[in-house]
Amino acid sequence: MSDLLDTIRDLAKKTDSKIVMVVLDGIGGLPLDPGGDTELATAKTPNLDALARDSQLGAVELVGAGITPGSGPGHLSLFGYDPLKYVVGRGALSAVGIGVKLGAGDVAVRGNFATLGKDRIVDDRRAGRPSDEKNAEIVGKLRAAIADIDGTPVEIYTESEHRFVVVFRASGGPALGANLSDVDPQATGVQPMTAVAHDDASVKTAALVNAFVTRAEAALQGESQVNGVLFRGYSDVPHFPSFDDAYQLRAACIASYPMYKGLASLVGMDVLTVEGHEDALDGKVQALTDNWSKYDFFYFHVKKTDSTGEDGDFQAKVKKIELFDQLLPQLLALNPDVIAIVGDHSTPSKLATHSWHPVPLLIHSQYGRKDAAARYTEDEALRGSLGLRRGTDVMPLLMANALKLNKYGA
Amino acid sequence: MSDLLDTIRDLAKKTDSKIVMVVLDGIGGLPLDPGGDTELATAKTPNLDALARDSQLGAVELVGAGITPGSGPGHLSLFGYDPLKYVVGRGALSAVGIGVKLGAGDVAVRGNFATLGKDRIVDDRRAGRPSDEKNAEIVGKLRAAIADIDGTPVEIYTESEHRFVVVFRASGGPALGANLSDVDPQATGVQPMTAVAHDDASVKTAALVNAFVTRAEAALQGESQVNGVLFRGYSDVPHFPSFDDAYQLRAACIASYPMYKGLASLVGMDVLTVEGHEDALDGKVQALTDNWSKYDFFYFHVKKTDSTGEDGDFQAKVKKIELFDQLLPQLLALNPDVIAIVGDHSTPSKLATHSWHPVPLLIHSQYGRKDAAARYTEDEALRGSLGLRRGTDVMPLLMANALKLNKYGA
Repeated sequence: MSDLLDTIRDLAKKTDSKIVMVVLDGIGGLPLDPGGDTELATAKTPNLDALARDSQLGAVELVGAGITPGSGPGHLSLFGYDPLKYVVGRGALSAVGIGVKLGAGDVAVRGNFATLGKDRIVDDRRAGRPSDEKNAEIVGKLRAAIADIDGTPVEIYTESEHRFVVVFRASGGPALGANLSDVDPQATGVQPMTAVAHDDASVKTAALVNAFVTRAEAALQGESQVNGVLFRGYSDVPHFPSFDDAYQLRAACIASYPMYKGLASLVGMDVLTVEGHEDALDGKVQALTDNWSKYDFFYFHVKKTDSTGEDGDFQAKVKKIELFDQLLPQLLALNPDVIAIVGDHSTPSKLATHSWHPVPLLIHSQYGRKDAAARYTEDEALRGSLGLRRGTDVMPLLMANALKLNKYGA
Repeated sequence: MSDLLDTIRDLAKKTDSKIVMVVLDGIGGLPLDPGGDTELATAKTPNLDALARDSQLGAVELVGAGITPGSGPGHLSLFGYDPLKYVVGRGALSAVGIGVKLGAGDVAVRGNFATLGKDRIVDDRRAGRPSDEKNAEIVGKLRAAIADIDGTPVEIYTESEHRFVVVFRASGGPALGANLSDVDPQATGVQPMTAVAHDDASVKTAALVNAFVTRAEAALQGESQVNGVLFRGYSDVPHFPSFDDAYQLRAACIASYPMYKGLASLVGMDVLTVEGHEDALDGKVQALTDNWSKYDFFYFHVKKTDSTGEDGDFQAKVKKIELFDQLLPQLLALNPDVIAIVGDHSTPSKLATHSWHPVPLLIHSQYGRKDAAARYTEDEALRGSLGLRRGTDVMPLLMANALKLNKYGA
């Protein structure tokens, strides 16, 4: 299926103009009580306010009406990749989330530790939700027992609680397929299932998975609770069109968390080194300043607006917004041709989780019209000239405002 | 093509929250004179106004820009079925409209009475638009003459004027196909055409149709004007994904008119018994109250807002809106987690027919933001936070507000 990205690729041109896309993770919020102010509306943001008065505002739905985006789909949408079309598998997203790079032909698999009873019957699909420390201990045991299977390198990574990730490396051999059945029966009282390949390329992968299960159970025989493994969600490397190619940009990612660096690298951005503490944001500003001349697109990620929302801590989220506001003048001082402020989804403190609500979008360039929105807040944004849009509209708008798109048709 | 409904099916989860979708049929209107008030803006609606001040508003186009929806497509859109993809055939919609249930393998056919002259030449494709009484009389003659054709049960129903419906019942035998050519030549001065099957499954149907034509003309030989039948639009039962399955809901329909009960039952809702007079609406409130604990989704249909618009009676439509407003507190007293007020299309009194104009949408839940719309009217709705959307967005938004959708992607 042809999509907007193909059209943009045909129109994109290289220029010297520079774009900064600031993603305030989970920025959209809700009032704690009906009719009240959201976190953004509560925060004192003189710098954002001043920028908003001189910018175009609107609101974006990242995936679709009513749909709550995960971080992956939310970011892909902002990067211009339709998240209903470009899907990152669970295994690959887990690998990305812990900072593991996948190469061509590799397969990543999401695993759960489980408790197996007599005759390998699954008693608990999550092994009683072990602590992260116990998880790391078990992963250590498995690493010692399974470095490779018949010469195929096997990497095992801890995630959290009962979750871990296994990467089977093709390491120069034929690509491993990712089209095979689950080991996880998604029920208790039955045995783990045997993985079955659904195509020729996945026959070897299925053999690797089944051998892993057997050897893991042997290695964990002494454990009372964490003595089995279940697999669900195999993925190879998603083959997405390259961001640089689609937009004719030299693009860089400025983020601290593995998930966001991973997503940016999936679409082919350079991931810059960021020093310092996430909270202070000064390391990120430094990375931006140091690399200003080398790139013409910067994805600048701010995490804590989401974390505080996830914690259900309204006031803490307000503070993180204010912290970004204090930093904003340093970004503006670089004088980007286009700067956008947006989020990858809403994370209202009231819900303490991601939500479906549209996020405010701000685009500042010298090519804006009058705009009725006076602040970067959820309800003001809806009065802005950009209207309510899909997240995939953001990149074309930034490219246009940077005068990086040729005319469509004669 | 995969559509939003597939995504929603993957994300939907069962919860205890309850959703009421009120469909005020044909609710959107127009001012009689440019710059004036619509029926909604004219009506005194203190209860709707109070609800609107505490709700999210927007406007919906059911099918697309400039497209005037029939009741079928309008409702399908509200139920989340893209009306350009999920098409109910003319025959099936007619059957549904008069309350006739179709079973698997049955075929429904839309018929016109016609006037045939010498050598079966079509003189009038609508037989001079007979009265409904004449129509019923002719249908009575046909029923007496054609109870079955070679053992296949045949049912004949009056619709109005020149329109009637024939249902051929598979009655346990092989499914009857609906892929055959029309009898209606769509021109005068020529003979009716012979139906020709376009696939094997429709060979028997074509034979039934042609036999019906011959026997009907024989039975109507004494008639001067209504002496022929033309068929156009054959349909079998539409196979739509089940509403309950797609949304993980136990859904009930509260409506009086056959068309709406039929549409709800096409998507698999339970159709509740409604006592009392349509106008009073008290029977509908009673049905809602009596079944409150048994379902978690209620489609609540109000017909007269459309009928009065169709009559071109502005003041009568205003009165019907005010009548609903008086009833609204009884719905709110049930304390639904989400209540939506919307229409299946506009029916401005000024046009005395359906129109393409967007209909106002109101969604009330505890997860709303500030909203600039102060009344449930066409122009206020456009100031609301939900923006201007497709009708198929309504169900995902209701599901989200009821916290019945999981996150999309990690």
